[in-house]
Amino acid sequence: MKNNQFAIETVDRKTELQELRAIHFVDASIDALEDPLAVWQKLLQKTVLEAKSQTVFNQKLNNYLATSEITLGDFLNGNQAVTNEIFYRVALQLLEFDVDSDFKLDDPLAAMKEIQLPFIKGPITTKADLLDAWYLLLCTHTKNGQTYLDKLAQDGYFVPFYRHTTEPLFFNGKAQAVFDPHQLIRDVVYVEAPLDTDHDGKRDLLKVEVLRPSQTKQGYKAPVLYTASPYNQGINDEAGSKLMHNVDVPLAAKEPNQLTYKDVQYQPQSNPLPAKRTIHGEQKEADETFAMESPYTLNDYFLTRGFAVAYAAGIGTKDSDGIRDTGAVAETVSTIAVIEWLAGNRTAFTNKIDNIAIKAWWSNGKIAMTGRSYLGTLATAAATTGVAGLKTAVSEAAISSWYDYYRDGGLVAAPETFQGEDMDVLATEVFSRMQKPGDYLKIKDYFNQVLSTMAKDQDRQTGNYSRYWDERNYLNNVKNIKADMVMVHGLNDWNVKPRNVGNLWNALRDVPVTKKLILHQGQHIYVNAFRSLDFTDMMNLWFSHELFGVANHAKELLPDVLIQDNTQPETWKTYEDWQSPDDQHQIFNFEAKELVPQNVPVRSAAASFSDHLDTETFDFYKKHLDVWERDLLTTNHDTKGENKLRDNRLIFKTSQYTQDTYIDGRVQLKIRVAVNEPFGMLSFQLVDYGEAKRLTVSPTILAAKSLSGTYDWRRDNLREFTLQKETTPWKMITKGHINLQNRHNNYQVDALKPNDFYDLTVELQPTFYHLLSGHQLGLVVYATDFNTTIRGNQELQYSLQINQCQMSLPIK
Amino acid sequence: MKNNQFAIETVDRKTELQELRAIHFVDASIDALEDPLAVWQKLLQKTVLEAKSQTVFNQKLNNYLATSEITLGDFLNGNQAVTNEIFYRVALQLLEFDVDSDFKLDDPLAAMKEIQLPFIKGPITTKADLLDAWYLLLCTHTKNGQTYLDKLAQDGYFVPFYRHTTEPLFFNGKAQAVFDPHQLIRDVVYVEAPLDTDHDGKRDLLKVEVLRPSQTKQGYKAPVLYTASPYNQGINDEAGSKLMHNVDVPLAAKEPNQLTYKDVQYQPQSNPLPAKRTIHGEQKEADETFAMESPYTLNDYFLTRGFAVAYAAGIGTKDSDGIRDTGAVAETVSTIAVIEWLAGNRTAFTNKIDNIAIKAWWSNGKIAMTGRSYLGTLATAAATTGVAGLKTAVSEAAISSWYDYYRDGGLVAAPETFQGEDMDVLATEVFSRMQKPGDYLKIKDYFNQVLSTMAKDQDRQTGNYSRYWDERNYLNNVKNIKADMVMVHGLNDWNVKPRNVGNLWNALRDVPVTKKLILHQGQHIYVNAFRSLDFTDMMNLWFSHELFGVANHAKELLPDVLIQDNTQPETWKTYEDWQSPDDQHQIFNFEAKELVPQNVPVRSAAASFSDHLDTETFDFYKKHLDVWERDLLTTNHDTKGENKLRDNRLIFKTSQYTQDTYIDGRVQLKIRVAVNEPFGMLSFQLVDYGEAKRLTVSPTILAAKSLSGTYDWRRDNLREFTLQKETTPWKMITKGHINLQNRHNNYQVDALKPNDFYDLTVELQPTFYHLLSGHQLGLVVYATDFNTTIRGNQELQYSLQINQCQMSLPIK
Repeated sequence: MKNNQFAIETVDRKTELQELRAIHFVDASIDALEDPLAVWQKLLQKTVLEAKSQTVFNQKLNNYLATSEITLGDFLNGNQAVTNEIFYRVALQLLEFDVDSDFKLDDPLAAMKEIQLPFIKGPITTKADLLDAWYLLLCTHTKNGQTYLDKLAQDGYFVPFYRHTTEPLFFNGKAQAVFDPHQLIRDVVYVEAPLDTDHDGKRDLLKVEVLRPSQTKQGYKAPVLYTASPYNQGINDEAGSKLMHNVDVPLAAKEPNQLTYKDVQYQPQSNPLPAKRTIHGEQKEADETFAMESPYTLNDYFLTRGFAVAYAAGIGTKDSDGIRDTGAVAETVSTIAVIEWLAGNRTAFTNKIDNIAIKAWWSNGKIAMTGRSYLGTLATAAATTGVAGLKTAVSEAAISSWYDYYRDGGLVAAPETFQGEDMDVLATEVFSRMQKPGDYLKIKDYFNQVLSTMAKDQDRQTGNYSRYWDERNYLNNVKNIKADMVMVHGLNDWNVKPRNVGNLWNALRDVPVTKKLILHQGQHIYVNAFRSLDFTDMMNLWFSHELFGVANHAKELLPDVLIQDNTQPETWKTYEDWQSPDDQHQIFNFEAKELVPQNVPVRSAAASFSDHLDTETFDFYKKHLDVWERDLLTTNHDTKGENKLRDNRLIFKTSQYTQDTYIDGRVQLKIRVAVNEPFGMLSFQLVDYGEAKRLTVSPTILAAKSLSGTYDWRRDNLREFTLQKETTPWKMITKGHINLQNRHNNYQVDALKPNDFYDLTVELQPTFYHLLSGHQLGLVVYATDFNTTIRGNQELQYSLQINQCQMSLPIK
Repeated sequence: MKNNQFAIETVDRKTELQELRAIHFVDASIDALEDPLAVWQKLLQKTVLEAKSQTVFNQKLNNYLATSEITLGDFLNGNQAVTNEIFYRVALQLLEFDVDSDFKLDDPLAAMKEIQLPFIKGPITTKADLLDAWYLLLCTHTKNGQTYLDKLAQDGYFVPFYRHTTEPLFFNGKAQAVFDPHQLIRDVVYVEAPLDTDHDGKRDLLKVEVLRPSQTKQGYKAPVLYTASPYNQGINDEAGSKLMHNVDVPLAAKEPNQLTYKDVQYQPQSNPLPAKRTIHGEQKEADETFAMESPYTLNDYFLTRGFAVAYAAGIGTKDSDGIRDTGAVAETVSTIAVIEWLAGNRTAFTNKIDNIAIKAWWSNGKIAMTGRSYLGTLATAAATTGVAGLKTAVSEAAISSWYDYYRDGGLVAAPETFQGEDMDVLATEVFSRMQKPGDYLKIKDYFNQVLSTMAKDQDRQTGNYSRYWDERNYLNNVKNIKADMVMVHGLNDWNVKPRNVGNLWNALRDVPVTKKLILHQGQHIYVNAFRSLDFTDMMNLWFSHELFGVANHAKELLPDVLIQDNTQPETWKTYEDWQSPDDQHQIFNFEAKELVPQNVPVRSAAASFSDHLDTETFDFYKKHLDVWERDLLTTNHDTKGENKLRDNRLIFKTSQYTQDTYIDGRVQLKIRVAVNEPFGMLSFQLVDYGEAKRLTVSPTILAAKSLSGTYDWRRDNLREFTLQKETTPWKMITKGHINLQNRHNNYQVDALKPNDFYDLTVELQPTFYHLLSGHQLGLVVYATDFNTTIRGNQELQYSLQINQCQMSLPIK
């Protein structure tokens, strides 16, 4: 077991003492003592929150061992000195590590090191030493993925503080749970956005749900975590499903063109905007409240730490005005209208009729955005406007350009497990105004009209980049970003593919804001309840700094680039950069079935594969994508011809690596290819071949409902990527796709003559991959990707001039 | 979409009015009105809990349509009469059904019928009619699986009641959410059990965690839902894993014996028991509290409805005394000691040292047990003691005899997905005293000694039934049951197999208590948050009756036997009995590959199969149990010899059924078999062959965290079994296993001569199965069951004299 904590601030002993006093661990009863043993006993007593009597306190202490023979209760009643060994033997037990399976009783310090738990280096001889060790212990993670102090908070430590709380309490640079979550005030307001997307002649009013500490009534000003979630007012699953596109359609030849970027560049339109509503009055209290928001567990954690939380679904959602147009500039404008209101720069109303204004008078004007996927996307979108008040955006698994979500290389390319989905489907799914018939009837016809336009503009026929997509490309505006950025992404996220974060990271490199990157080994998930990483603490340090201005060195303590290792569980490494321009490159040439170093001369050779399958096999693979993937990648001996994909792809392998190697960023391929029709596509997968126990692709729940931000509050599951029980022979590292008519870029269409060879360059999705010594890299070249591309099952035959192919591998 | 509600009590209009008044829907403002339209408006106003102004109320009403043209707001401001059509058009919207996808605006009554929602039959013309319809609407389920009144409770309807609550409030026979869950009092007490399982010379003290309404401080006496969960103080996963048994061991010949039941009958031992502790005083307030219990969501629902909840883990768990011995009489004694305390018949102490007694003075002495799996098992165990105070046990997926959990037919037979687990492993996993080193050290040696005895007594060598297992067979004591019983079990539960509930049901048939049975299509799951069934309401009706004595006709309203259909989603049917002795039987004879009706003459014939596989295949199947299962059952043409199990099983199929048929209970097989060694086993699966879309085996989450028992309280996921997207060619219905040396019963060992034919009879696990017309039944006969039996991969050859085999199918 390995612990990885980045959010522990080192402070001097004087500060420690002040902070221990602030959280009531040090008080008059401690001041009266000098003996470290007595001090320790007093501190421990404050942790046994379940005890209402001295007897129960003793009873609980005797559950722990101070030495292999003496219980903690007996030890405290004796007069032996506290040693580091004894302190940390007990500490490990307090931190919920198990004797024998997690640590050996006789060498607790070895276990502290092995589990990577922090401990004080000097001896514990004085009261001051003991308090120093205690301070650090409170900052240390338990076996269950939270600081010991948060564990105590969960047990009720801060409940007595609730009644006296007037402002946040910080410990080790992080806000503590001194706000009663059951006293939160819940307001609904309607922000007037500078938009009229439903063309009703009135500016769109957008519903915002706010949870704020009750202390705001007494003048406390709270910073705000704002999550823009198009889903949180409801999802139209059925309506969306009906719109899903058939992907079993043929690829067609595209008319060549000579488009330049200027031709596809988005041109802002200046639509006339209705006047602002005339304000008929102002009110401090909201007219409307709400009961069941759709919460993000990370926000829940901060709700009890002095933060307010705002949720808004934006245009076209239930109770709001407007029309949903996914990715459009209007959507971004709708997203930031809420920030503008929170920062005091835009009007909101108490309801949609009376024109009574209501200010975010309880807000301190400092806002962070949070959320994953579409939510994180809107955080990124908001940041690219440079809107005032947005201090930081935490964008998790976020899209940076919608083209990179539904398209790739001039091809329709679905996010994994969402074959057939497109912009119109998603816009319909989140258009939750549909769920209120009285409202929906007014807007139904116009929305259908917008949907038709969307269906046309998204252009599934060509898969080309266009003005439509350029409007929906946030990368164009990264230079405007003023907010500090935290980006979190899964290296195995084939829903929002890594290119989205990769391009954002690269575009941000020279923008003068602080940016932090966390790449984990998961798919499309949240990482805030993982045992091996103190993500929640990191965000606490971060938000305390960004939104409260606490001088906690958050910007220095949080690593710039933090990447989870793919070969070992619970292993997180820090780096200065990802996809650094300074990376070295390994260049490989192609031979039959082989990738050979650049200096090995290769002979002229070609290799072909078909993209056609018999109908039975084709239908089977459509239903069994896992079998398709297995058959695509397997290189086991196939003496019986059971693998139906054997002739439908080429696999080139390196020899076994003789040392561990780190692939860092975008693998580039140069390919010379011909196809027997005037259209065609190629797909590529870079694969790690080598028998190994690999991490589970989905997190394992280690303890259900075990984490809570404070006493009697919402719970979360503790999770972790664990090693699979069995070894696997391969692991797909990254992939890419290209339409053979998009050899220059995603918008220029090139001519393609049947059976002529063409050169093209493809960049695979960026990655970071630890390739173990003894493993081989394999490149799989194929055409139809059952998970991603359209699937025409056409009689296509592809040939590669393999001596004219090359692979360039960026190496850290 | 189909709704199934059983817990709606029909009451007269006068009672309805009283109850509507009690929950404040009818009040002076309603009394002052006569016009049904005005009354309706007033009622609706009370439902818009988010509105703090009249404007917001109007705004929300305009989200609904009264007619296809007129919003509800406009309608209420007009003077058209409320018709049934208008009332139910709005009702469907209030119940969260979606226009178009769930119902057509122009015919709401048709939708009410189709979705199986209750509605009043007469016209709505008077205020009284309107109130009648409103009453029924409050009892009706929303699209999201809760009554409309519970939906309102979740929105905060009952929050204003909290301050005035002194006792429960019942509506339609069910307790309502008028107790503030954040004011619950949490006590820990230590019950002194009449046991000394750790042989320390003192009676075992058992930790109990109680959550009780704060109103108990003012004299309110609460009934108790008690969940005995051996897991809830922690689980020793690692220690358990280390003990897992190797199942890849050979089957061996057993020494024949002539044992009778008397030889294996459990004989109660009268161990001398230490004296009770001398009580040194009494105290009303607990010395100890707790923060994070391990909750059952069904209990959470009742915590806000006037019920107290008690959790206890029992002997050998963290903070309790004793040693874990799964299934032993001592475990049952430990389980009921808590009930005895709750009912005022046993002593508990405030802590483990001071001998200060504490009574359950806040309890009304009426107790129900709840929980699933091991938890439900202990509920069954407790019921079989006839302990006073236990009014009802809801035992879900419960074991009724531990032999039927880890053994079958004289064989070691693991619960599915737990190959290698046994009594000693489970006892170790729940022996959470291990997690507190100070306590554990004292008991470690003795526990290891108990473990050794357990390992011997459970006897993996023979798999025979014995005194050890007879002690752990609750069926022996079913006659003692005094509590009314609710049993819930999955027909696809291959963890706790259906025989467990089947035998309990049969044993209870003549016991003079009320018994109710719910059989669902799930595996080993809870069913309290399913959309199609009002299980939570049923339990509310039930507990309100059993523990509060409310005359709500619960015993009549709840069906005796309720079974979910396996061919259609959301379909629940009621029956008078399961496995009725009056069932008809279809008898089949065997021919080569066929099952033919009894009256078809069959020729003398034999058929053989091997139980041996090459090592590679054997190892592959061990890792890929799903492929093993597929290869075992598939009867697709296998021209290429890809199916490695082709010669390792026999499959006999009926012709296609020409009408839908319901298999009800235990399929019996008569088999004449020979094997080439002096040992052997047979396994059987009864299979439904026929291409069909079948229900998902695991529930689908329809809406995450959408259900809550009241405002700002713990949330649950809404679930349902939905139809799989693709058709499947078969479905395993039920199975069975037998050791060929246990032809008489599970304890008598018979001689087995190699290659001699023997007759034996096997009963498969009981089932209830809807076989569709056009489908075939198949019987698969094989030996090693990779999921269940030991896997010796021995060179065994089995032969069936098939004209001497017969299958008897009980038919409803």
